[in-house]
Amino acid sequence: MGRQKEYLDKLSRFFQIRNLLLRQALAECLGTLILVMFGCGAVAQRVLSGGSHGLFLTVNFAFGFAAMLGILVCGQVSGGHLNPAVTFALCLLGRERWRKFPMYFLFQTIGAFFGAAIIYGMYYDALLLRPGSFNFTSINNTAGIFSTYPARHLTLVNGFFDQIIGTTALIVCVLAIVDPHNNPIPQGLEAFTVGFVVLVIGLSMGFNSGYAVNPARDFGPRLFTSMSGWGGAVFTARDCWFLVPIFVPFLGSILGVVIYQLMVGFHTEGEARDKKQGTFQENLQLANVASSNNSKEATKELY
Amino acid sequence: MGRQKEYLDKLSRFFQIRNLLLRQALAECLGTLILVMFGCGAVAQRVLSGGSHGLFLTVNFAFGFAAMLGILVCGQVSGGHLNPAVTFALCLLGRERWRKFPMYFLFQTIGAFFGAAIIYGMYYDALLLRPGSFNFTSINNTAGIFSTYPARHLTLVNGFFDQIIGTTALIVCVLAIVDPHNNPIPQGLEAFTVGFVVLVIGLSMGFNSGYAVNPARDFGPRLFTSMSGWGGAVFTARDCWFLVPIFVPFLGSILGVVIYQLMVGFHTEGEARDKKQGTFQENLQLANVASSNNSKEATKELY
Amino acid sequence: MGRQKEYLDKLSRFFQIRNLLLRQALAECLGTLILVMFGCGAVAQRVLSGGSHGLFLTVNFAFGFAAMLGILVCGQVSGGHLNPAVTFALCLLGRERWRKFPMYFLFQTIGAFFGAAIIYGMYYDALLLRPGSFNFTSINNTAGIFSTYPARHLTLVNGFFDQIIGTTALIVCVLAIVDPHNNPIPQGLEAFTVGFVVLVIGLSMGFNSGYAVNPARDFGPRLFTSMSGWGGAVFTARDCWFLVPIFVPFLGSILGVVIYQLMVGFHTEGEARDKKQGTFQENLQLANVASSNNSKEATKELY
Amino acid sequence: MGRQKEYLDKLSRFFQIRNLLLRQALAECLGTLILVMFGCGAVAQRVLSGGSHGLFLTVNFAFGFAAMLGILVCGQVSGGHLNPAVTFALCLLGRERWRKFPMYFLFQTIGAFFGAAIIYGMYYDALLLRPGSFNFTSINNTAGIFSTYPARHLTLVNGFFDQIIGTTALIVCVLAIVDPHNNPIPQGLEAFTVGFVVLVIGLSMGFNSGYAVNPARDFGPRLFTSMSGWGGAVFTARDCWFLVPIFVPFLGSILGVVIYQLMVGFHTEGEARDKKQGTFQENLQLANVASSNNSKEATKELY
Repeated sequence: MGRQKEYLDKLSRFFQIRNLLLRQALAECLGTLILVMFGCGAVAQRVLSGGSHGLFLTVNFAFGFAAMLGILVCGQVSGGHLNPAVTFALCLLGRERWRKFPMYFLFQTIGAFFGAAIIYGMYYDALLLRPGSFNFTSINNTAGIFSTYPARHLTLVNGFFDQIIGTTALIVCVLAIVDPHNNPIPQGLEAFTVGFVVLVIGLSMGFNSGYAVNPARDFGPRLFTSMSGWGGAVFTARDCWFLVPIFVPFLGSILGVVIYQLMVGFHTEGEARDKKQGTFQENLQLANVASSNNSKEATKELY
Repeated sequence: MGRQKEYLDKLSRFFQIRNLLLRQALAECLGTLILVMFGCGAVAQRVLSGGSHGLFLTVNFAFGFAAMLGILVCGQVSGGHLNPAVTFALCLLGRERWRKFPMYFLFQTIGAFFGAAIIYGMYYDALLLRPGSFNFTSINNTAGIFSTYPARHLTLVNGFFDQIIGTTALIVCVLAIVDPHNNPIPQGLEAFTVGFVVLVIGLSMGFNSGYAVNPARDFGPRLFTSMSGWGGAVFTARDCWFLVPIFVPFLGSILGVVIYQLMVGFHTEGEARDKKQGTFQENLQLANVASSNNSKEATKELY
Repeated sequence: MGRQKEYLDKLSRFFQIRNLLLRQALAECLGTLILVMFGCGAVAQRVLSGGSHGLFLTVNFAFGFAAMLGILVCGQVSGGHLNPAVTFALCLLGRERWRKFPMYFLFQTIGAFFGAAIIYGMYYDALLLRPGSFNFTSINNTAGIFSTYPARHLTLVNGFFDQIIGTTALIVCVLAIVDPHNNPIPQGLEAFTVGFVVLVIGLSMGFNSGYAVNPARDFGPRLFTSMSGWGGAVFTARDCWFLVPIFVPFLGSILGVVIYQLMVGFHTEGEARDKKQGTFQENLQLANVASSNNSKEATKELY
Repeated sequence: MGRQKEYLDKLSRFFQIRNLLLRQALAECLGTLILVMFGCGAVAQRVLSGGSHGLFLTVNFAFGFAAMLGILVCGQVSGGHLNPAVTFALCLLGRERWRKFPMYFLFQTIGAFFGAAIIYGMYYDALLLRPGSFNFTSINNTAGIFSTYPARHLTLVNGFFDQIIGTTALIVCVLAIVDPHNNPIPQGLEAFTVGFVVLVIGLSMGFNSGYAVNPARDFGPRLFTSMSGWGGAVFTARDCWFLVPIFVPFLGSILGVVIYQLMVGFHTEGEARDKKQGTFQENLQLANVASSNNSKEATKELY
């Protein structure tokens, strides 16, 4: 046991990365990998089993709880965004530095890419055995397992609003959950709550285009599919739909930040600021009476 | 970064609303918007996808977790009622001031109105493409996405009891969850628990008329549908059913308050009152022995 | 406001019951009412809607979360048993007084009776409109909404084991959750956890006979059905099956207590006892060194 | 009451096992029994009811929440592994002693064996009445209720990766949840979170071969089925598939440990180590200024 501990300690020292940003980016990468692996895995299970081992509901559950687990895995290190749109919103509010944004975006996309690759490997047999799996004109095409495509009824304009509304809803809820002045949940339960947000978005906003609301989650797997059998059609399909879930979520981010701040955020912040100023003045007075310390303690015991 | 923070601070000061009641009403508005947006969104997803992307169960989940998220978003500011029947019950018990009631009712209804509008925009294409969507005599009529209509088997009398029973059940559970003398859950988990209440009501009381149990959630979207294609039929349909979910929930509120108080509330309150009087007398005695302070502390360390 | 508070205070004093056992029994009554109302309501919704508004899964969710809510409503007052088999197990272990048992049993059964009555009222129209609803020879018979009947494949012997196994599983899990020496969950989350126990039992042990595992939950509603249209057949059906869910769960209670205590309980209890004796001796020593108090406090600040 | 307590105390002393390892092994046995009983029970309910009382989703829920309950029952005593692959991973990291591994493996397998036996007893009638239930060439064969068999589309190579990926995902998530330097969840909620991990794995990785990812959970019930009607075919079926879920999960364990440590673990450990050294030096300085104690306390009261 002693020797094992020593050896583990050496390994730990050897592999330890001291650069905070890189460490955080790696954690985001793992977190997003988990999100996409479990999420797309559930879509694969539903599609490839023909519905016997999955429903749209199970996909929603999987994405929700996958988000929860992804956040749990990396949250303490990197904040657990898993989504460039979330990183963007927090940067807008000055809660994260802007230089984090490109790094997070990159590593979140890499994580999503490998998450899709894992699911591809896992269901390789099932994919191969399905005729038309890799053919975009076939009804059996399975590219939708990995990235989102709009439903037949959706126009590009409505798809645009679909992604804006979805991301705005996500950001408003996430901001409420992490707002330091409106902290409604016990510490450590943020991940669970964000998981429920993702679940609910899937339950109510998933019919149009599969609720990407996350540029990394959609682009990483799309890149993977373009390289592993489906080809460039993943980009050109449906009037270059792939651009919508990459760029529109950021507009949703801005809108979400504006709505939350106007309706709740500015006021709770302001209240906290007002209170702090009050407390500061009280403290000044307190310092003057600090000598009357003992009498105060006696009082405290009575109440 | 510095400049951004400064700018945000300025914005925050500019938009800060200092009127507490208005701030609370705005928060209720956002919370109810979230409740209706996610809840009605799930109904829309189920109806418009013809069941492939939703079940009645997913609607129940959506309304339950939407209530949870709505409460999380506004709970710290306004209490997170999201429902005039809940506000009414708390006013009856003297826990909220009566003047809050009309403000909350109004802004909850406004929030519900806009929640429905968002879902209308989100599923605009799918609604338009469905023949008979806006026609009340058609089997494809989709008004039921936004507000509740009784099932074919339901008479008005039974519908009346349906809404009373549903609201009473809601209020009894909510009162138990927020009762200061019977506080059974860790702080911060009230929202989750209320979400489960709404979920269970949907699982077991949703077949008759879609469990409105909330005047704002039903009337706001109904107003929206009357203005956006369905017309006045939303009010006249089924013998003016729309009056039932507006007025009956308040009767349920009263009944719920009476039942909870008689079975549990009065007794735990009384016990707390009895204990407080005891404590007060103890404190008086304590003050006399406060000088024996040090010896007491030594004792404390042993146990 | 002042006058309202005064009036409420008067009411509170007037209706306050000071007898602890009666108060607890009332709370159990309300809790069991909630359990049966939501649980049987979900069965009714599933059966009467012909599956469109419910699945067996939704019934399981409803019973699980209904148990959770029932416990939350009455847990602080009465312990939240909702089930004579649970009361019996806790009496066996000396954690509750035996005289509570008959009182709890009676009021739990009364609560279950009224819970069934509420659901009967709620779905009165739907029950009446269904031909054969009240006729035991009809395939449309709906007595199964309220109390349990064995599936066609089940013999009485296997039904006996079915109820024993179900109750034993329930009791083992409940004992682990409330074991003071093996307390694995944050205070206040017991209700949630017990809800999951009930949910899981439904998911995996519900096919044989509908997992009564609770004499009050089964007998109360059965009594109600015998009085409201189905007649004595509810007792004589399937070789007097009704006796099984009344008596067998208590055997399961005993078995559950024995298994949990032998596998886990006795050992953790013993460890706690051993530790306490150790602590007691330590304390004796501590008392001797209490004078070296100040030095100890300084030490504490370093670690 | 007094006599009962005395008697219980005597029993407790008589049956108390003081050997820690045996006590822990017994607890693991009970925990794994619960996992397999509820999990396989849900499969049985789904298979034997022909889908009317279960879906693949309900099986996922059952395994997830069964894992949660199993951990709750034994977690305080034995750590709640329920899975030799988890024990193996923790041994690899030096968090558990290696001599625990064979004991835990043995007792986990015994628990799984008896869990399967209980479900066999519970659904004995339903199994017997199903023609072809015990016949491997029949489509009605029910051996899959108890242990896993690969789907028709799965080759052995892909099955190998299926088990590796599943176990790796499990271990990465479990390590994040129990990592002392990256503890993201409130104490006592680990069991819930691990339950969600198992649920999500079922939702997204269950289609290939039923996500054993646990040698004990698969081998124990397989042994039971070989002894109770299905015979040796349970081992020879599908090119001796039974070896895969016994040996491959350990490879997944290793891979999971490596991935988690490289991406997150080593860095958070290192940070904690760095901080500790810093704190130690600070403490040394603190000791020097311990005399300035009172002034510091006054300061603390201001902030």
